[in-house]
Amino acid sequence: MGGDVKRRHPWLLLMNQLTKIAEMRYNIFRIYLRKVLMEKAEILKFVDHTLLLQTATKDDIKTVVEDGIKYGVASVCIPSCYVKYAASLAQGRVKICTVIGFPLGNDTTDVKCFQAARAIDDGASEIDMVANVGMLRSGDAEYVLNDIKAVKDACGDHVLKVIIETCLLTQEEKVEMCRIVSESGADFIKTSTGFSTGGATREDVALMKENVREGLGIKAAGGIRSFDDAQDFIRLGATRLGTSALVKILKAETPNGY
Amino acid sequence: MGGDVKRRHPWLLLMNQLTKIAEMRYNIFRIYLRKVLMEKAEILKFVDHTLLLQTATKDDIKTVVEDGIKYGVASVCIPSCYVKYAASLAQGRVKICTVIGFPLGNDTTDVKCFQAARAIDDGASEIDMVANVGMLRSGDAEYVLNDIKAVKDACGDHVLKVIIETCLLTQEEKVEMCRIVSESGADFIKTSTGFSTGGATREDVALMKENVREGLGIKAAGGIRSFDDAQDFIRLGATRLGTSALVKILKAETPNGY
Repeated sequence: MGGDVKRRHPWLLLMNQLTKIAEMRYNIFRIYLRKVLMEKAEILKFVDHTLLLQTATKDDIKTVVEDGIKYGVASVCIPSCYVKYAASLAQGRVKICTVIGFPLGNDTTDVKCFQAARAIDDGASEIDMVANVGMLRSGDAEYVLNDIKAVKDACGDHVLKVIIETCLLTQEEKVEMCRIVSESGADFIKTSTGFSTGGATREDVALMKENVREGLGIKAAGGIRSFDDAQDFIRLGATRLGTSALVKILKAETPNGY
Repeated sequence: MGGDVKRRHPWLLLMNQLTKIAEMRYNIFRIYLRKVLMEKAEILKFVDHTLLLQTATKDDIKTVVEDGIKYGVASVCIPSCYVKYAASLAQGRVKICTVIGFPLGNDTTDVKCFQAARAIDDGASEIDMVANVGMLRSGDAEYVLNDIKAVKDACGDHVLKVIIETCLLTQEEKVEMCRIVSESGADFIKTSTGFSTGGATREDVALMKENVREGLGIKAAGGIRSFDDAQDFIRLGATRLGTSALVKILKAETPNGY
């Protein structure tokens, strides 16, 4: 009977075929979209979703933690005065990272240690410290090394990342910092605070990859604005990314998470 | 005999008179110069001669301390990791000032207290702390007040200045910060860190003068580049100036001190 109708109305057959093609194309697009989103979700696992502005409010921190949970980031990175609050919101569903001696790195070593211990006590799992660039430039590499070692002791088993603020260093100083951080017992070397004259560059991440000890994590931070940037940095050797842009992009694409 | 010579050579008389006039003019100029220098020396007494860059080396700090002593500034303001070194150089000939919770002000209160106590222990006489702008913007004025009160307790009789970072605040927030700092027991309110989006403005110093308690010191910092700037700020009510420019200017004019 249906065949009869179709034979009598060949345009119906055509429409049927066209609908099938449209459905197929839609399904292919959905699979592609899913694949892209999965890739993005994979990249998000590398991300410390970061908000360190001194104007950040409790509400801003709440949003960061909720987004961090929703999009499955490596951690949320927030100012130390909000760690306790963020940890109480997160309830273990996302790691809390905070910064110490930030962003200048020229506090005394025992202040950095006190701050790290306090942050861990408040619920931080990861600590990003700033290395003492002034002491390096004073020729006192020993001070810089001992500064990091002491903070690593204060961190115990918790992850310590060391920001060397590449934009302030010469090529030689960058290589020296790679040596110092490799020797210090820290878990990551990190390019930038995001509060100085420049952020992560592809060249600096490649230089780090070449000069740090096997197994030391590399965190690129500052100026990562797109998933393409992120893929570039990962390809060059970054194992962690500090940024707020990627979650924002994904949030605009998929407001309810994925 | 001399009279005879002069009568016979009237051009000698003329030259003699011209020399006397030149000497007089030179002496007037010297008195004027002395007066100007004295005025500048008076202004220098208001100055916290400041170097807080994270690239500052031990040698840079040494120069700052030596210049501070030579030019009779109120204090030298340097990073906390150099306080012990600076105090050992100064031997009481110039006060040492340092900064805590700097420049973001979003460390926990007990970290700020620990840092203040440690700096005083190392030889600092004056502490410049950064108020917690994020908590103010979260509507938690109580936190901001208690943060400052706790640091003042840690400072004891030592001078505490509170940086409110005016460039990040609305007019209402500036007035509220004036009220909080007035109530806190701190000794000074201070405009800026010099590390944010703007420095001291004449308007902000006037606003502070109008809104702080009688007797609270006012420190203008960031963007003071000349003695004219300095005089403006003092006229508007500033009782302390954070700058490195004035010593540099005077140093170029009088390399051996005055």
